[in-house]
Amino acid sequence: VAAPRALAVDVGGTRVRAAVVTRQGRVLARLEAPTRAADSPEAVVAQVADLARRLPAEGIAVAGVCAPGPLDVDRGMALATPTIAGFRDFPLRAALADCLPWPVHLEHDGHAAAWGEWRFGAGRGTQDMVYVTLSTGIGAGVVTGGRLQRGHRGMAGHAGHMTVAPGGPVCACGNRGCWEAIASGPAFAARARDAGFADGAAAFAAARAGDTAALALCGALAADIGLGLTNLIHLFSPALVVVGGGMTAGLDLLAPGIAAHIARTALPPFRGVPVLPAALGDNAGLVGAAALAFAARTRAMSLSPSQASG
Amino acid sequence: VAAPRALAVDVGGTRVRAAVVTRQGRVLARLEAPTRAADSPEAVVAQVADLARRLPAEGIAVAGVCAPGPLDVDRGMALATPTIAGFRDFPLRAALADCLPWPVHLEHDGHAAAWGEWRFGAGRGTQDMVYVTLSTGIGAGVVTGGRLQRGHRGMAGHAGHMTVAPGGPVCACGNRGCWEAIASGPAFAARARDAGFADGAAAFAAARAGDTAALALCGALAADIGLGLTNLIHLFSPALVVVGGGMTAGLDLLAPGIAAHIARTALPPFRGVPVLPAALGDNAGLVGAAALAFAARTRAMSLSPSQASG
Repeated sequence: VAAPRALAVDVGGTRVRAAVVTRQGRVLARLEAPTRAADSPEAVVAQVADLARRLPAEGIAVAGVCAPGPLDVDRGMALATPTIAGFRDFPLRAALADCLPWPVHLEHDGHAAAWGEWRFGAGRGTQDMVYVTLSTGIGAGVVTGGRLQRGHRGMAGHAGHMTVAPGGPVCACGNRGCWEAIASGPAFAARARDAGFADGAAAFAAARAGDTAALALCGALAADIGLGLTNLIHLFSPALVVVGGGMTAGLDLLAPGIAAHIARTALPPFRGVPVLPAALGDNAGLVGAAALAFAARTRAMSLSPSQASG
Repeated sequence: VAAPRALAVDVGGTRVRAAVVTRQGRVLARLEAPTRAADSPEAVVAQVADLARRLPAEGIAVAGVCAPGPLDVDRGMALATPTIAGFRDFPLRAALADCLPWPVHLEHDGHAAAWGEWRFGAGRGTQDMVYVTLSTGIGAGVVTGGRLQRGHRGMAGHAGHMTVAPGGPVCACGNRGCWEAIASGPAFAARARDAGFADGAAAFAAARAGDTAALALCGALAADIGLGLTNLIHLFSPALVVVGGGMTAGLDLLAPGIAAHIARTALPPFRGVPVLPAALGDNAGLVGAAALAFAARTRAMSLSPSQASG
């Protein structure tokens, strides 16, 4: 009998990704599509079912799904995802279970990506790791003492909504001065446009060509990212920080400023904590969701062998 | 044979406390003294030895010690405790083991108090709890999935040094805008004095008597405490937050403002997280240090029975 495989699904605000993943974290096949985020939750669920249908089903024993928070993982609900229409008190796990022939395990995307990087990526071999997605939003996943930190209802890791600049820019959540409101992709893009660049990517490109204004934008962004990471380092004491998400396209420009901010503002014992790029790229969430689904299946089988496949 | 007891020691920047504590968290005898914080680490260690000598030794099998961070718990070192002279790269556990006849288990005071409140106090029955000491400094201890979050080298929980107001007041650590620099006891006392009160306690008393200026000070403090707690709620997703430390003397005045800040600024699923006062008061650290020392002893005995008493 071949080792079981997982269908892994990463429901993002921009892309829906689905893959077949082995127990060893290997991605055997992979598809993606632009998320029908403006339509309805049912449309997004139908997209997942469609991608799953187009992947080879052979050997798949479990489905691991990750999605943006806040989710109630215990009840399988999307509570209030701002980036996808209708993901508000929506029973995502049940809706997916209705159209997939495997047990469905649901996790926060930040938790799944953290677990993927910890098991198979940049965090391998540590006991304590903080993973941060720097993207349209900012989220975190934490491994502490070799365990994924889920928190009550699986809702830990909403790092983007730390207030770090009271009275600062308005966030998508309605507050002012959230970390996400100053250090996310859209926040940087807005500042880049104010300085005359087409978008964030154009500012990164100009900075690489030596443009002074672009370099100044990157320096300010690095300090803002460094500020939030320093807070997380003080709170979680990770052996290392792993950063992923679209903003890491500029990490070559940002890493020195991030490290300098940590070295300047962290308490002395925390000054050397390294910040590394994610090793699995876009696949971190898929690989982590698969690994967590395998682990949930193993737990279910050891608790109740007769129901393990249901 | 009677059940074993622990010598519990809480080395604070202001008071050194020592007690005999049972496995059930009961404090059988207790002594304290003003910390000789300005003298030398050896003077503080001698104080601990003196208090221990004056307590009934009968049945004591282990010593549980907690002290302010940053500590390297793995190596038993006080790394850079700003409030006690000479607690800088000082081998605290070894120094205590030299003058106490029991194995010495060292923990951060915030972690010990969190564990005490979780096992025997306000956090009983939860899986995910954040404990915050609001005192001369601000520190946190987190229980996640029923386990104490230690972090790399046991250094998690330095919540007081989250930057929450960049460019704000200077902190004891040298940075500006740490949570501790705006919401600790000394920060509140300074604002109280600026407003014409003798100290923080006088401002609390005046607020209870209806003084408008004092009530405004309390409102601002509640918002500043609420800001940091809301950050922790987003990051850790606790089922409840427990607050201890000297500042909780004003919790009757502060609780409504803290709850209002959380309800106003937290993401919707986090708005109802309750904030409760510590149930064990000054004994939380002692009781938690004892419980953690018992747990370490049990682990040591199960790993290596022949060395368990050494």
